[in-house]
Amino acid sequence: MLLSQYFLPVLKENPAEAQVVSHRLMLRAGMIRQQSAGIYTWLPLGLRVLRKVANIVRQEIEKAGAVEILMPTIQSASLWQESGRYDDYGKEMLRITDRHDNAMLYGPTAEEVVTDIFRNNVKSYKDLPLNLYQIHWKFRDEIRPRFGVMRGREFYMKDGYSFDLDQESSTKTYFKMYEAYLRIFKRLGLMAIPLKADNGAIGGDLSHEFQVLADTGESQLYYDKAFEDMLNQDTYDVASLQKLYAAVDDEHDSANCPVDDSSLRSARGIEVGHIFQFGTKYSNAMDAAIDDANGKRTHPWMGSYGIGVSRVVAAFIEAFHDDSGIIWPEVVAPFKVGLINLKVKDETSTIFANSFYEKLLAANVEVLYDDRDDSAGKKFATMDLIGLPWQVVVGPRGAKEGVLEIKRRGTDEKQEVSVEAALDMLTA
Amino acid sequence: MLLSQYFLPVLKENPAEAQVVSHRLMLRAGMIRQQSAGIYTWLPLGLRVLRKVANIVRQEIEKAGAVEILMPTIQSASLWQESGRYDDYGKEMLRITDRHDNAMLYGPTAEEVVTDIFRNNVKSYKDLPLNLYQIHWKFRDEIRPRFGVMRGREFYMKDGYSFDLDQESSTKTYFKMYEAYLRIFKRLGLMAIPLKADNGAIGGDLSHEFQVLADTGESQLYYDKAFEDMLNQDTYDVASLQKLYAAVDDEHDSANCPVDDSSLRSARGIEVGHIFQFGTKYSNAMDAAIDDANGKRTHPWMGSYGIGVSRVVAAFIEAFHDDSGIIWPEVVAPFKVGLINLKVKDETSTIFANSFYEKLLAANVEVLYDDRDDSAGKKFATMDLIGLPWQVVVGPRGAKEGVLEIKRRGTDEKQEVSVEAALDMLTA
Repeated sequence: MLLSQYFLPVLKENPAEAQVVSHRLMLRAGMIRQQSAGIYTWLPLGLRVLRKVANIVRQEIEKAGAVEILMPTIQSASLWQESGRYDDYGKEMLRITDRHDNAMLYGPTAEEVVTDIFRNNVKSYKDLPLNLYQIHWKFRDEIRPRFGVMRGREFYMKDGYSFDLDQESSTKTYFKMYEAYLRIFKRLGLMAIPLKADNGAIGGDLSHEFQVLADTGESQLYYDKAFEDMLNQDTYDVASLQKLYAAVDDEHDSANCPVDDSSLRSARGIEVGHIFQFGTKYSNAMDAAIDDANGKRTHPWMGSYGIGVSRVVAAFIEAFHDDSGIIWPEVVAPFKVGLINLKVKDETSTIFANSFYEKLLAANVEVLYDDRDDSAGKKFATMDLIGLPWQVVVGPRGAKEGVLEIKRRGTDEKQEVSVEAALDMLTA
Repeated sequence: MLLSQYFLPVLKENPAEAQVVSHRLMLRAGMIRQQSAGIYTWLPLGLRVLRKVANIVRQEIEKAGAVEILMPTIQSASLWQESGRYDDYGKEMLRITDRHDNAMLYGPTAEEVVTDIFRNNVKSYKDLPLNLYQIHWKFRDEIRPRFGVMRGREFYMKDGYSFDLDQESSTKTYFKMYEAYLRIFKRLGLMAIPLKADNGAIGGDLSHEFQVLADTGESQLYYDKAFEDMLNQDTYDVASLQKLYAAVDDEHDSANCPVDDSSLRSARGIEVGHIFQFGTKYSNAMDAAIDDANGKRTHPWMGSYGIGVSRVVAAFIEAFHDDSGIIWPEVVAPFKVGLINLKVKDETSTIFANSFYEKLLAANVEVLYDDRDDSAGKKFATMDLIGLPWQVVVGPRGAKEGVLEIKRRGTDEKQEVSVEAALDMLTA
């Protein structure tokens, strides 16, 4: 992508309204812009990251047997009246009246809609287990939206819903999702600790939340350091993981902690996922039933599984940044390479940089090419700010000698290499 | 994908509420389900098609220089008050009040939001031309939603917005989009006639709509048959195309038609795209200005460019179906191949079918494999209904002899071929 034809409105100064680093850097790096409180437009750079995170979540969840659907954002209030949550939900629910005076709402979650789909379309135990998910926009009318997309009102979430014949099968599905979540965060390169959690308003008694570690995280965590080794394995020992201690600070009592000090880690965390098993709460309330093998009407056991996809983007930045800007891991970087032509008016430089750009495109390397007529200082600052994993610099001297300067973002090591060597490094 | 693990709730009977063939077949083939009037969930099969259409639109629009962003679905009413459209828009706009009593709305389109982004982030003529687009959900509170996703309330649309320094540059961008639209519809395999159109409420005086031909289309079109040849060329002669006659029936006057009868075609059409040039209407109203080369504040010329992506899915079905169901063109088919194992209890059949399934997956062929224990009649009917381009049937006799039966959907020709020959046909 040529930067001259892209839309990357970077900011030199820290915006006054942004209190956390991810919010500051997402604004400064031209990833998002606020439309109104807690509601954002995703600009090209941000959207690329959002989509990469979503795709990794999608792939891993599908490997674990979930099937993708897309439910509407606007839902009927009547479904929520059936489940009994319409009144409970309070002011965080964005309530809407349509032109025919029907009570509608912008879905903050979709247990009711998916249960309605289930009861209208699934009739037999033979169709179970069924695990449906979507990655879609949700709305929660937070009283004080803040921290950018970390606590926004309109946000992007993966929400999955499972239906099983009985508790045993449902629990199996639940831990399949638990494992899939660990795999997702590992693939993303984030250390995510699973904590036993309260089911809260959603009901039921089996629940875990997943907290990504980052120094600037919102909550204080305490956990057994054995997590760190076990989460780094290729396969997970779920039974053992479950027994490990982990708690947020208001549930942690150091006097009665089962883990001794030498094995206890404390760190800041950001909640990025939450899974629930809630039994027949919704299938009973909404009378979603199937025939079991004996022809008896049975209400399936359900679970739901959320990942805050837009929140994960912010969590990445909280975990990976320095004073100059973001440091993207390759797995979700908006582009792998930032190519800088230092002096576009120098013909040799421009021919050389253009040719290297074409070679990267031909090798399917995602590259953002700063081909603008601007100062070297500004170009370097922009590249550091947007944090692409590799920076490649073409200057007049190097161009004459046929060499490029290559730098890994986040380190200060620069190397001068030939075109061939650079291509080898960037396509490895 | 194994059908036993998929979610494909097909209907044997025509749903009473569905009046047009695309609505009927989308319900029957398990592509969509209604949540409330004009609001649908996209089930797995439908979502795959929706995404394929969106991806083709995305690729072609980006080749023509547009850059992707994602604006929120919920917008501030204040922006629409600035543009003057808040009161004009009437009851089709879904108006919302948030918990702090702010007037909001579910965006039916995004001229105001994108103009706001522009005025806050673009300062100089050097950043022009700029062409931003999104593919996102919109809401129009239709008084009588009908025909399924053809005239729904929540719908999926590609909407693009261009900013140019002056009329000349804006007109160039406009016709670049005009060409990109022709290219999109050609790549989709749909014959789309561009008709000069009214700008209506959006303002301005240059506008075209694109009508896909289908016998069951909503409007009656008259057009010069020269379109058909010219739209089939590899490059478009936009100047000549523009001079050709095309009109919808209420604008067509056969007594004064410039085309003689022998060259005039009449056909039914479905509007799937609409492009507008509206000059400085919004940049003036919202004071979005940049500095021109002389440092003078200038309001850019704008255009907007829509394609109804969810509507295109329905248009495909209107154009490609028979009495048994949908006939998907390969370019947007949810899967390329439907593989049927006629007798799952026959071990030879199942080993043979499984092995062929694995070979298709290994060759990256998208395949839906009916591995369920069900009658042959039901399996054939389902495959015909969902309309995958190729059907491959494994039966006990063929499995013993190592041959498959292969059929192109929409024809009655069946061939018995070897595994190798089948793979050659399906990977060609």
